[in-house]
Amino acid sequence: MTVVGIIAEYNPFHNGHLYQLEQARAKFPDATIVVAMSGNFLERGEPACVDKWTRARQAIIAGVDVIVELPLVFCVQPADRFALGAVKILKQLGVEKLFFGAEHATYDFNAMAQKTLDVHGDFSKYNESYAAAYQRVVQEKLGYSVDQPNDLLGLAYAKANLRVGSPFEMVPLQRVVAGHHDLTLKKTQRIASASAIRKQLVMHNETETRNYVPLATYETLSAQKIVSWANFWLLLRYQLETSSLGDIRRLYDVSAGLEYRMKQQLEPLAKDATFDDWIKAVKSKRYTYTRLARLAVTILVQVTNEDVRKIETNPYIRLLGFSSRGQLHLNKVKKNCSYPIIVKVDKKNKENLLCVDYRAGNVYALASGVSQDLKRAPIRFQ
Amino acid sequence: MTVVGIIAEYNPFHNGHLYQLEQARAKFPDATIVVAMSGNFLERGEPACVDKWTRARQAIIAGVDVIVELPLVFCVQPADRFALGAVKILKQLGVEKLFFGAEHATYDFNAMAQKTLDVHGDFSKYNESYAAAYQRVVQEKLGYSVDQPNDLLGLAYAKANLRVGSPFEMVPLQRVVAGHHDLTLKKTQRIASASAIRKQLVMHNETETRNYVPLATYETLSAQKIVSWANFWLLLRYQLETSSLGDIRRLYDVSAGLEYRMKQQLEPLAKDATFDDWIKAVKSKRYTYTRLARLAVTILVQVTNEDVRKIETNPYIRLLGFSSRGQLHLNKVKKNCSYPIIVKVDKKNKENLLCVDYRAGNVYALASGVSQDLKRAPIRFQ
Repeated sequence: MTVVGIIAEYNPFHNGHLYQLEQARAKFPDATIVVAMSGNFLERGEPACVDKWTRARQAIIAGVDVIVELPLVFCVQPADRFALGAVKILKQLGVEKLFFGAEHATYDFNAMAQKTLDVHGDFSKYNESYAAAYQRVVQEKLGYSVDQPNDLLGLAYAKANLRVGSPFEMVPLQRVVAGHHDLTLKKTQRIASASAIRKQLVMHNETETRNYVPLATYETLSAQKIVSWANFWLLLRYQLETSSLGDIRRLYDVSAGLEYRMKQQLEPLAKDATFDDWIKAVKSKRYTYTRLARLAVTILVQVTNEDVRKIETNPYIRLLGFSSRGQLHLNKVKKNCSYPIIVKVDKKNKENLLCVDYRAGNVYALASGVSQDLKRAPIRFQ
Repeated sequence: MTVVGIIAEYNPFHNGHLYQLEQARAKFPDATIVVAMSGNFLERGEPACVDKWTRARQAIIAGVDVIVELPLVFCVQPADRFALGAVKILKQLGVEKLFFGAEHATYDFNAMAQKTLDVHGDFSKYNESYAAAYQRVVQEKLGYSVDQPNDLLGLAYAKANLRVGSPFEMVPLQRVVAGHHDLTLKKTQRIASASAIRKQLVMHNETETRNYVPLATYETLSAQKIVSWANFWLLLRYQLETSSLGDIRRLYDVSAGLEYRMKQQLEPLAKDATFDDWIKAVKSKRYTYTRLARLAVTILVQVTNEDVRKIETNPYIRLLGFSSRGQLHLNKVKKNCSYPIIVKVDKKNKENLLCVDYRAGNVYALASGVSQDLKRAPIRFQ
């Protein structure tokens, strides 16, 4: 029996994601499909449009067998760290083949990963962003540029796979139809980008999304409050106003001086300014929108350096849901799994391993109105 | 020329306050009236219904000559500390006669103060509140109970006056008509309690308040957003959710164990619970509603022990407004005033002396929508 792994955000789960699952089932009809999904805050530094339980349910109904939450400290990260966090978890869950979408599915991601394995971390130029520097160095190593978002993620997965001893066969799937940043919904198609779908959801045009998402997704989206940075901006602004420079400095990944700039740029903002207005005021050649948006999540949820260190050295797996096939698989892998598999939040783990995810859930719930972790059991699906 | 001092909150300025000013002018027609007023958060642990500038303007139009802001660290305090902070400031401003309302204006407040001067601070019983213990010990010393709010404040002023060398003659004025906690507006009267007026304001019944406030107050109240704890509850809840126990412990006056109880009582609360629901869940015989509400302001504005110590050892006077008579008086007293008189917020003082008041203003502005301190000059009135 084949075990297929997928790293996803499902923000929200749409027909493109369904197509990926169908491709996996077509190739491996008896596959168990295991997904590591971001929780309530996502890789690009934004809140999920609906909470992790809703998105996990959408995925399980569509055919995923096991879905686990990628801890926030791996989630709200540049691609390389995001990928490594997810790959380690999927390795523990016995994944054999890693499926991922790519703009260029013909690339040899393994070979590319070999050549660029040492490209990461500190770049010394102060007038370019991390992302720009990364792409520049990758281009130098490969002789051609990799600049499409899914290709870059695929490369990050391949590098992470190499780093943990290559447990996976890499299976790129050609991304169809929608570009990652394409914000229009095309009437003749059934697949659109998640961004285009979210754009309609935020404007309360749920009906516009009907053609592009499975029915179960459509129904949950219509019933739920759609969340965006607009719902957290007041809280973030309040946090920045009441935090001292020292308070901000002890948070994860705050470069020297940035704490000052982030607070200072609040002052001239109008009282009705938006999250975007603030980010644009803080932005520079060195600090991209996405980097700052990730930091905004760090500040909103108050993720400290200590939190990240603790979770990196004590990784865990948080189970969100499973099918009956998934349950059999979990029973099989848990013997050899060296990470604790957490099925519910209790008094002890919410103050230890799970402290950041629990806090993130509580913050998210202030906007969504739906309690996230206490008394929640994993979703079971026959 | 007589200098009359008043300690006030003006939440909002109403006909009862006007009556007090008229009494002072009747007795001393040439008096300069100097007021120390709470800023945006008040003695009983609540946000002011309208901001300090609006309330200062209401008072100046009604005849106050100099109005200064009582720093938040003296403001959101039990009566004795509130009184001492205000009395010290009024002494620096050359006040000779301290006017205050009392339920029993015939009391000899000086004599009562002599007998109870040492009643303050730690009471060891754990099953009664500070307020209850204080009243019990005062009753033992005097032979009769003092339990009306304005009498208790008057006693606190008299004790503070003794402590700073009795610079003031104490002038109690019989409180007329409205009881402090009377929440009804009586059509045949022109004076109502501030609580009764606020109750109507919060329900958007400004027109109901017309008979009980001066016209200038009425006009500003109709034009302004009325603020209450409801406007800050989301922020406070967010702050509590994201603060560690250690974060809360370093704040001012958090007794051991209370930080745990305050966080713990959030968990069972419904997502649509109110500030009141939370306070009532945390409340006990030992911790009264008011004590907890004050702590809530401390947490909301993140006032640390260090902040309070810094301001107590470096007191200052923040000028909110003055009349032309007030200006002459200020010119006269400033030579002998040993506290710095701050007329505007600048880069330096907002990070030092004024840091707490500036932060409180920024937090308040998140709800009121009106910037509080930057680029504001004292109100001048001919």
